[in-house]
Amino acid sequence: MATVEFIEYEEGSPEVREVYDDIMTTRHVDWINNFWKALAVQPELLQRTWSGVKEVMTPGALDALTKELIYVAVSVTNSCKYCINSHTAAARKKGMSEEMLAELMAVVGMANQTNALANGFQIEVDDVFQHGGRAPK
Amino acid sequence: MATVEFIEYEEGSPEVREVYDDIMTTRHVDWINNFWKALAVQPELLQRTWSGVKEVMTPGALDALTKELIYVAVSVTNSCKYCINSHTAAARKKGMSEEMLAELMAVVGMANQTNALANGFQIEVDDVFQHGGRAPK
Amino acid sequence: MATVEFIEYEEGSPEVREVYDDIMTTRHVDWINNFWKALAVQPELLQRTWSGVKEVMTPGALDALTKELIYVAVSVTNSCKYCINSHTAAARKKGMSEEMLAELMAVVGMANQTNALANGFQIEVDDVFQHGGRAPK
Amino acid sequence: MATVEFIEYEEGSPEVREVYDDIMTTRHVDWINNFWKALAVQPELLQRTWSGVKEVMTPGALDALTKELIYVAVSVTNSCKYCINSHTAAARKKGMSEEMLAELMAVVGMANQTNALANGFQIEVDDVFQHGGRAPK
Amino acid sequence: MATVEFIEYEEGSPEVREVYDDIMTTRHVDWINNFWKALAVQPELLQRTWSGVKEVMTPGALDALTKELIYVAVSVTNSCKYCINSHTAAARKKGMSEEMLAELMAVVGMANQTNALANGFQIEVDDVFQHGGRAPK
Amino acid sequence: MATVEFIEYEEGSPEVREVYDDIMTTRHVDWINNFWKALAVQPELLQRTWSGVKEVMTPGALDALTKELIYVAVSVTNSCKYCINSHTAAARKKGMSEEMLAELMAVVGMANQTNALANGFQIEVDDVFQHGGRAPK
Repeated sequence: MATVEFIEYEEGSPEVREVYDDIMTTRHVDWINNFWKALAVQPELLQRTWSGVKEVMTPGALDALTKELIYVAVSVTNSCKYCINSHTAAARKKGMSEEMLAELMAVVGMANQTNALANGFQIEVDDVFQHGGRAPK
Repeated sequence: MATVEFIEYEEGSPEVREVYDDIMTTRHVDWINNFWKALAVQPELLQRTWSGVKEVMTPGALDALTKELIYVAVSVTNSCKYCINSHTAAARKKGMSEEMLAELMAVVGMANQTNALANGFQIEVDDVFQHGGRAPK
Repeated sequence: MATVEFIEYEEGSPEVREVYDDIMTTRHVDWINNFWKALAVQPELLQRTWSGVKEVMTPGALDALTKELIYVAVSVTNSCKYCINSHTAAARKKGMSEEMLAELMAVVGMANQTNALANGFQIEVDDVFQHGGRAPK
Repeated sequence: MATVEFIEYEEGSPEVREVYDDIMTTRHVDWINNFWKALAVQPELLQRTWSGVKEVMTPGALDALTKELIYVAVSVTNSCKYCINSHTAAARKKGMSEEMLAELMAVVGMANQTNALANGFQIEVDDVFQHGGRAPK
Repeated sequence: MATVEFIEYEEGSPEVREVYDDIMTTRHVDWINNFWKALAVQPELLQRTWSGVKEVMTPGALDALTKELIYVAVSVTNSCKYCINSHTAAARKKGMSEEMLAELMAVVGMANQTNALANGFQIEVDDVFQHGGRAPK
Repeated sequence: MATVEFIEYEEGSPEVREVYDDIMTTRHVDWINNFWKALAVQPELLQRTWSGVKEVMTPGALDALTKELIYVAVSVTNSCKYCINSHTAAARKKGMSEEMLAELMAVVGMANQTNALANGFQIEVDDVFQHGGRAPK
């Protein structure tokens, strides 16, 4: 169904294989999922996207699972079937319980509702919330 | 700018005041933000939305800060100015550091990018990711 | 395909069954659609969402069919396959003719177009339209 | 703020003035709102959009107010400030009461919430809802 | 799966057939794609939409391929499966190479990312960018 | 209004200044726009985003102006005020005429309309359009 051909490992240029190898090493898996096989149609797109995802998803001030939950929340709001399935799977692998998934969806659902209400009534931002509550310089 | 009149505490019916009181008690604040003042145009809408938000945002399998970060992620993806500001402020109040905010946005940005790529190439879901990785019954 | 297991009536806790019974009674049907079976993974999510939908969709200042048409319009704009199908079916059941459906889509399509144009040119709101045309306090 | 210059009536070509005249006649007003002044940068865009809006918003199987409510629902979901304000004002002019506005928003909010839940759990469409409930040929 | 019945050429009214004939003549094809067969449920919707698309997609200041690429970019951002597939196919027919498709998606992905970042941090528009960089009257 | 503090050139770490210098050199300007000043709260976010944008926007199979038009199209569809203004300005600088801007918006508007119609009627993809019209392997 994809609008581009997938590049399998055997077909990949050395540049592509290097990224595939890094994906498998980083994730401790022995296969490449379709997303990367599609991006490999343009090796720089593959390389840049993977290095971005790798960097962004590395635990930092936020842990790996929290980042994955945020990823799912965005994917749901964008109605991206591939991303919802793949990141829900990734979150489960990183320890998301069924209770967490249900709470995640409850928050995502509520946020989509109140976003609509705030936009719908064109509610102006309270002074206290200006700048997202930070103390201006 | 709002398309409805705000209902101030003094103007509120007993039904509205009861909700306002619960909001202030629950959040340990002595004022009501514009969102609720707008919803008060229909007391049931106010009551139902507040009780939903209160229930959903109570710490459970996910802690309060994680829920707030998810709320911000959705609000950003929906481009809701009021919600981005108010929930960023709420997240800060619950302990979100500037590093966390930066990482949150990095994940939200990356997710929006890869959502577009997965949709754009119409990539089919890998078998392993079907059902979000859960073992089917 | 769903990322959570459906809870069938027989498997449901008394809490879940109570909601299922109310859904069937309220809607005069003898079966439960997948949406509720998925939400039942978290009984409070099921209970809260159902009572919200029930309350919101009850005829009031707007009749039942008008509410259903609005529901479809939002679902289309959000590209929600499940919701478009289920609420189009619900609207038909409530009396939506094929002419109405065509007109609904014509309005939804036109609104999506002019929304893009207004955003695209960053057109400022006319004074007369400020506050959605309400007389400010 | 608009990214194009507004074309005032006096500045308009005969082609533009003809559309402006039709807008004022059709709507029983003696002024032109910013949306059309921006579109007038390309007279065919102005002409085509106006004739489309005029045709679509004419009462048919759906009455004028219902169409306007649908227009607002889409505009809210798309987060279009101009459109929310202008179509809320238009709906008020066509008879939308404050109760109706509150119910409209309640439905729009609920729809955005359940859209997220249906997408988030990737719930498959029930057989009965396939084809939006129409009897297939 | 469509929620309306498709109108085949043989079933079409003279009004519908006239549009179908124009589509086939304009596009040098001998068949009608599903999109138009669905819109034909309301001949004016079919007629208005086709004449709009025909007018808009005619080469002008922008060439045919550029317009098609823009069409795909919007369709991806809206997560419209039908539109992504049909307009990617149309773009290929108009000369889009695989390199162009990859670059298109790279831009669309990047734009979705930076849109989220700009919204997420609520960054105010620089003076130089006000009015989209046009010299105000 | 931004939810983070802007980092001015003088305040920037050597890492930040290096990116700022590259932005100014690449774009032949002597100032930094707010977007980058916000991202500088996390130097890696700044560095990664800039190097991505720089790489993606470099003329390749698609020229610089076409890429900028695509960027605007996405920004409009996402309702991102900052991005619409800044990329419209950038497109003008790269040679976008007022006629091109009007045609761009006409296409973006039309695409948003037909996306809604295709989603709204849940139209299935024609066989010929499967895989975006590519010949499957």
